[in-house]
Amino acid sequence: MSTVEVFLENKTPIKILRSIKELREWRRKCLLASENVGFVATMGALHQGHLTLVYGANNSTYSPYLGQYFKVIHFNANIFDIFYALLVKNSLEENDVTIVSIFVNPAQFAPGEDLDSYPRTLPKDLVLLESLYKPNNPKSGVDAVFAPTVSEMYPSGFTLDVANQKGAFVEVKGLSHQLEGSIRPAFFRGVATVVTKLLNAVQPDNAYFGQKDIQQTVVIKRMVKDLLIPTTIRVVPIVREYNGLAMSSRNEYLSDDVRNNHAQLLYRALIEGENLYRRGVCNSKEILDVVQQALKDNSTENFKVSIDYISVADNETLDELETINRNSGAILSGAIKVPNKENGVTRIIDNVLLV
Amino acid sequence: MSTVEVFLENKTPIKILRSIKELREWRRKCLLASENVGFVATMGALHQGHLTLVYGANNSTYSPYLGQYFKVIHFNANIFDIFYALLVKNSLEENDVTIVSIFVNPAQFAPGEDLDSYPRTLPKDLVLLESLYKPNNPKSGVDAVFAPTVSEMYPSGFTLDVANQKGAFVEVKGLSHQLEGSIRPAFFRGVATVVTKLLNAVQPDNAYFGQKDIQQTVVIKRMVKDLLIPTTIRVVPIVREYNGLAMSSRNEYLSDDVRNNHAQLLYRALIEGENLYRRGVCNSKEILDVVQQALKDNSTENFKVSIDYISVADNETLDELETINRNSGAILSGAIKVPNKENGVTRIIDNVLLV
Repeated sequence: MSTVEVFLENKTPIKILRSIKELREWRRKCLLASENVGFVATMGALHQGHLTLVYGANNSTYSPYLGQYFKVIHFNANIFDIFYALLVKNSLEENDVTIVSIFVNPAQFAPGEDLDSYPRTLPKDLVLLESLYKPNNPKSGVDAVFAPTVSEMYPSGFTLDVANQKGAFVEVKGLSHQLEGSIRPAFFRGVATVVTKLLNAVQPDNAYFGQKDIQQTVVIKRMVKDLLIPTTIRVVPIVREYNGLAMSSRNEYLSDDVRNNHAQLLYRALIEGENLYRRGVCNSKEILDVVQQALKDNSTENFKVSIDYISVADNETLDELETINRNSGAILSGAIKVPNKENGVTRIIDNVLLV
Repeated sequence: MSTVEVFLENKTPIKILRSIKELREWRRKCLLASENVGFVATMGALHQGHLTLVYGANNSTYSPYLGQYFKVIHFNANIFDIFYALLVKNSLEENDVTIVSIFVNPAQFAPGEDLDSYPRTLPKDLVLLESLYKPNNPKSGVDAVFAPTVSEMYPSGFTLDVANQKGAFVEVKGLSHQLEGSIRPAFFRGVATVVTKLLNAVQPDNAYFGQKDIQQTVVIKRMVKDLLIPTTIRVVPIVREYNGLAMSSRNEYLSDDVRNNHAQLLYRALIEGENLYRRGVCNSKEILDVVQQALKDNSTENFKVSIDYISVADNETLDELETINRNSGAILSGAIKVPNKENGVTRIIDNVLLV
């Protein structure tokens, strides 16, 4: 019997919830026990390397519930989100109980995007989450995983073809079509819709999202505020590699040389903009110029950088700012494309908060 | 001191909640006391005549809390919803606790519609709701009224101009643009959005809506199902005048002759269609023909009836049906315009369920 099979026989403290009904029963027990609930929404495909990054575990991980050490390094997870691990860590620290959802949300993919090939590795995800438990600390791991089917989450069915979709969708107008939304017009509508569903189903006290996807955090915060959803949204800062490059699954596409010596360029350029702001400059054009110039200076024949956008935007409205109000601050963000190891390009996004 | 002023000094068992924060505190107490919560969303402008219709009270109503009989017949309420009273009655019967919201939702008005002139009569509404209490039965009245400001419900602000709206909106695609939605394109988006907000804020176990606005009930049921909102939607049957005319604030616009002798015509025509269905006819065209013929037969030079639509639609999708499946049934609905007492026309809507 493999560790996965053992795990799925439920010899684990993690409660595995597959239906809304099971989820609500679990949630009701937390409520009656007056336990605060923290929530991390993931698309699964969790990656050992990055959980250990946060938890400082070794290559092999001891499972007190499986009674053995095991290695989980062959997960073929080609997409994952480094933040999941950090989000879970924050949730564990700040709540009595933590629940992680694992759901690949079809509504945030466009036709032709990688919905079908997106890895679905639930048993391995569960083993990884289970590995967070420390033998002597029963509160060190997540308490429940909500892993619904598409039909639980989209009870009226779902089609990728936006024009023919039926049923309830949530759109956050004014925040969804600029920056990252400009190249993925239905993306934030998909995110807002599924996060509304998840928050309504889980009813967490706190929900954790990563600053890396800053537009997503702004959209979700506004949605929660506008729809009067009784959850506090907590934004967890960006995790960076040693040279400043924001951690991302896509970094795997970069050659070692680009990853170690060049890809941090966007962050470095944003920092130059931030330094200007710290020295008292509030004119966005000056800040944008210095960021763009830094990117151009580092673009060569052998390492071509193309800029998708560099933006100085309001924290709440995402409107581009001509002048930054020092009381409210701003978001300085950017997206660039750099050469990857397959002779194509990889898109890098990053942001810093001007506070 | 008027009864209204006495009332507003809170010498009443009705808890008046003006903010989301107060509402959530009240709701939390119900939760901890394991009390089921029933909810009726209203736009206010409640009308004595129609509360008494349901409750069988006299012209004057005794308030045990005000210690006197009082009349509340001068409310100038020119718009109200007869169903509110029946919805409240159903909620009182089926729940430990009932809360009524009073909020004129700007998002369901179009520019040029009667948002500004819509009556806002909160103190009078409160007195009316208070009058439901019976001296010897403390459970006979509503427990709380949630009467928020526009800025509580739309914390990001609100504009009637749909193209310039910002923030989170809920749209129920596929159900919002036919039938009643065809003449009011933003109406059901406004309804879905505010009902999502109210359900998230109140978190009721049961929420009551009237069958008269059947498309609204279909939209809300779908929205609650799709967004995984933990509330059961209860649909309360139509209340009719003695001749079959569905009760509505708009009936006041009709002359006595039209109201008593002609306006029930739509209901009578729908019943003819229903009778055909009961006799085994499942072909929609035959049913529609008989309804339309009945309407035409009753349209004369002196009493001109114009038909907006007659529809045989699926219960859940609102798609027009060619053939009715006897297992699932259908909604037979219609809208007509009839002469009113001001030499204009008044729109009458009605529906019957083919089950």
